[in-house]
Amino acid sequence: MKNIAVIGYGVIGKRVADAINKQDDLKLVGVCDVISDWRIQNAVRKEYNIYAATPEAEKEMKIANIPLKGSMQELLKKVDLVVDCTPKNIAAQNIKMYKEIGIKFIVQGGEKHETTGHSFSAENNYKSAINLNATRVVSCNTTSILRTLTALKNAGLLEYARGTLLRRATDPWESHLGGIMNTMVPERDIPSHQGPDAQSVDPDLNVITSAVKVPETLSHMHYWNVKLKKKTTKEEVLNAFKTSSRIKLIHYDQGLVSNNTIKEMFLDMGRPWGDMYEVALWEDMLKVVGDELFYAYVVDNQAIVIPETIDAIRALTGIEMDADKSIAKTNESLGIH
Amino acid sequence: MKNIAVIGYGVIGKRVADAINKQDDLKLVGVCDVISDWRIQNAVRKEYNIYAATPEAEKEMKIANIPLKGSMQELLKKVDLVVDCTPKNIAAQNIKMYKEIGIKFIVQGGEKHETTGHSFSAENNYKSAINLNATRVVSCNTTSILRTLTALKNAGLLEYARGTLLRRATDPWESHLGGIMNTMVPERDIPSHQGPDAQSVDPDLNVITSAVKVPETLSHMHYWNVKLKKKTTKEEVLNAFKTSSRIKLIHYDQGLVSNNTIKEMFLDMGRPWGDMYEVALWEDMLKVVGDELFYAYVVDNQAIVIPETIDAIRALTGIEMDADKSIAKTNESLGIH
Repeated sequence: MKNIAVIGYGVIGKRVADAINKQDDLKLVGVCDVISDWRIQNAVRKEYNIYAATPEAEKEMKIANIPLKGSMQELLKKVDLVVDCTPKNIAAQNIKMYKEIGIKFIVQGGEKHETTGHSFSAENNYKSAINLNATRVVSCNTTSILRTLTALKNAGLLEYARGTLLRRATDPWESHLGGIMNTMVPERDIPSHQGPDAQSVDPDLNVITSAVKVPETLSHMHYWNVKLKKKTTKEEVLNAFKTSSRIKLIHYDQGLVSNNTIKEMFLDMGRPWGDMYEVALWEDMLKVVGDELFYAYVVDNQAIVIPETIDAIRALTGIEMDADKSIAKTNESLGIH
Repeated sequence: MKNIAVIGYGVIGKRVADAINKQDDLKLVGVCDVISDWRIQNAVRKEYNIYAATPEAEKEMKIANIPLKGSMQELLKKVDLVVDCTPKNIAAQNIKMYKEIGIKFIVQGGEKHETTGHSFSAENNYKSAINLNATRVVSCNTTSILRTLTALKNAGLLEYARGTLLRRATDPWESHLGGIMNTMVPERDIPSHQGPDAQSVDPDLNVITSAVKVPETLSHMHYWNVKLKKKTTKEEVLNAFKTSSRIKLIHYDQGLVSNNTIKEMFLDMGRPWGDMYEVALWEDMLKVVGDELFYAYVVDNQAIVIPETIDAIRALTGIEMDADKSIAKTNESLGIH
């Protein structure tokens, strides 16, 4: 049993905390934040141990009657590993502290690869993370790229991949703060950063991406053109994707024709927040033309990195040396079948 | 001077009518529709001759005090060519009539290639349309594909092209009737229809497209991955695009970072309805990697086919045998520089 802390209780942190809480080999010692409004009340309801990230936050949280266990420093003393889910500028400060204390830590994909020297995607490079002091779970888009291209690569099919990423405008909970409306906003540069980011996990991947922001909040959508190593069949490609337990093949002809219908299905399934941990890839839309492959899929930007983070904890703490076993265990706990 | 009629006074028809009215070698004899509300008042304001498409419409239009010149049959007797801009099911009926009467006609991209046996894109195949009885001006997306890929092909650069098309949800004027909201809706099939449609003009083009509808109304956006015949430079690619007078190179770094900013610029320019007849292609975003080319552009679905339609009229009526001269004349009249 390893003791784990979650720093930052936002859209990722609250999901990571719940996921840790579901593991029989991990103990959620506490969550830590600066917020004292409705958002932290979720942790109160769940009876998590709550810690204040700063003295100012401690004052505010006491005024708001948040039951506090102590300070961030006190929390850090109790744990084997910390998962940092704070915003970019905060995480950079925290990382310095983790390194000084000498505590193992995991950061999310918003941070640079250099902050940890290792970037993580379970099905690709679990083994290389075992017993490391730190890793970075790559971002939602990059995770989806790695899952799908790793499956094609392992089947000996991948020559190179070119993707167009349609990015959701903002997270649903904060869409009142502003997001784009009735327009599309391309990223300035082609290639966009997700291709090189995937290479931080697997330098052998030949991948180039372009990205554009669209006015919706539910999920990202990717369109891929892949050059295969040889002419092949649709069946062979599907078999490759089926080797990943975190790619879910979906069917357009079953009414799953859009982001919103997919979201509703995952809510129907009883997933917390309707979370989709899998890459939802359209089987019937997928097309092989000679040695070229075309497909599209949807990525839940709030959820896809959650199982990856649990696996990263197991790798860093060394409580599971076998990637497949960790993935299976995580999947089972989160209802990924 | 050739006499022309416009049948169907919707988003395309009203633009085509204005464009015809600006030509010194074409005479707009009249416009014809069934509507009697605010939409036809635009034709009244412009003092166009208005004809009723059906006896029922004639009654309604008289009640609404629309000044009527007569019936569609009477209009057809007065003209050398008719441009049909009606919705799909109406156009199919009209085409039968045009063929029976033996009048030259142009249909828009919503119709099938087979209805005319010829599909038109000025910079690609003007010559083949000269003195024909009928042609189809291909759709907005297909027009943009033909312009850009023809430029690359003529420069000896194009091996094959793969595109992802982000389609606007609905036309602005009818967005109150419903459109998608906070989601994305892919086309069921890859390849989507626009690739084969481009081949109806130029069978030699090796092009495969995927398409997805997004929740905005301003314009379409395309992302392209092109395999070039050889390693080349960005400059050579830009020089190829510059051979087309209907591709406008725009700069992200000048604040043109999205559909809405581009739209506002064209409104600033004083174009009617802010119409963008050109393909607006980001010069600074465009990237060449070895023998691969990546770029993105924006397509005004209401406007891009307007200059094409004017050129198609000249080709079919045989009043201009030289494509370049027709294109230059049309460009000048519409302010395309």
